[in-house]
Amino acid sequence: MEKLYYTYQMIHKLAQSIAGQVTESGFNPDVIVAIGTGGFIPARILRTYLGKPILAVGIAYYDLNDKPMDYPRKVQWIEEAEKKLAGKRILLVDEVDDSRVTLEYCTKELLAYHPAALAVAVLHDKHKEKRGAFPPGVSKVFVGEALGDVWIVYPWDAHDIDEQDRNAALERGAET
Amino acid sequence: MEKLYYTYQMIHKLAQSIAGQVTESGFNPDVIVAIGTGGFIPARILRTYLGKPILAVGIAYYDLNDKPMDYPRKVQWIEEAEKKLAGKRILLVDEVDDSRVTLEYCTKELLAYHPAALAVAVLHDKHKEKRGAFPPGVSKVFVGEALGDVWIVYPWDAHDIDEQDRNAALERGAET
Repeated sequence: MEKLYYTYQMIHKLAQSIAGQVTESGFNPDVIVAIGTGGFIPARILRTYLGKPILAVGIAYYDLNDKPMDYPRKVQWIEEAEKKLAGKRILLVDEVDDSRVTLEYCTKELLAYHPAALAVAVLHDKHKEKRGAFPPGVSKVFVGEALGDVWIVYPWDAHDIDEQDRNAALERGAET
Repeated sequence: MEKLYYTYQMIHKLAQSIAGQVTESGFNPDVIVAIGTGGFIPARILRTYLGKPILAVGIAYYDLNDKPMDYPRKVQWIEEAEKKLAGKRILLVDEVDDSRVTLEYCTKELLAYHPAALAVAVLHDKHKEKRGAFPPGVSKVFVGEALGDVWIVYPWDAHDIDEQDRNAALERGAET
C-alpha cells in the first residue's frame, strides 16, 4: 500500500483549513471533543483557531493492559458527560475517517447526551468502503483532505522526525 | 519578556530526548497521563517512543463557560481513576513547569489513588520562583530543556505556522 508522509506543518495547515470551513459554515462549537490518541494533536491545533476548550475521550481496540478487544471500547470517557454536553454544540475531532467504526461509535455515544448539535472534523477522509456510518444527528462533517485508501504516516508517529520530513519532501517535490 | 519560538521538529526532538531519559532511568510507566491542553502534543509524541496508552485530564483556570476561576479546577478527570491508576506506574506529562501550581495540584490528586510510582515529564522547566512544589511521592522529574523565565511560543499556538518557523530559525540561526 502506498505510504503518504505528512509533516507537522502540513497537519497544522490542514487543521487551519478545517477551522476556516467550520467558521464559514456558521457552526459555532461550544466544546471540542478529541478522540485519543489520534485526535489529540489536530484538536489542539483547532483550539488555537476556534478558541474552544477540549474534552478528551479515549477509544481503543486494546485495553490499558494491551489485551486486544473485538470492538472499540472506552479507555476514557467524559465524566458527568450528560451534564457537560447536554445542550452544547460539539465538534468531535479525530485524525482520520478510515473505516468510520470509531466515529460511528463516538457520535452515537455523544448523541445520547442530547447535545444542541454535533459535527465531526477529521484531517483526512479515506475514500473506501466504510463499515460504519454517521447517524442522522451528525449535522456536518469537515474534512481537511480527501484521500484514496493509502497508508497515512503522521509526523507524531515518527521515530526520526528528520527522516519523516525528508520523506514528505521527496514525495511531494517542492510542494511542501 | 524575551520570546522563544519553537518548531514542531524541536518539540518532537525534546520529547524524544525525554523518552530516552525515561528509559535510561529505569522508570517504566504503565500509563501516560496528559494534562490538557498543553500536555496533549508532548504526550502523544512520548507515546510513539514509550508505547504506552494515554489518559487525559483537563485542568484550567477557566471553566467550560469561560468564566475565570481563582484556582485550578478539573475540567475533566479520569473516570474510575482509583481503579485505573491504583498500583500503576504513572508518567504525568505537561508542556511546561512554570509556576508548578498545576503540577502540584495534579500530582497530589494522582497520589491519592495510590499509584505504584509517579514521575513527571515536561518539555520545559522555567528556572524561576515556584509557587507550587512536588509532593514527596513524585519519584522523578524529566525535563526536556531548562530555560530562564522566558515567554515560550509553542508551534501549536501559531496562527501562521510558516511565520513561527521563520521566527524560530531567525532566533537560532543555523542551530535548528
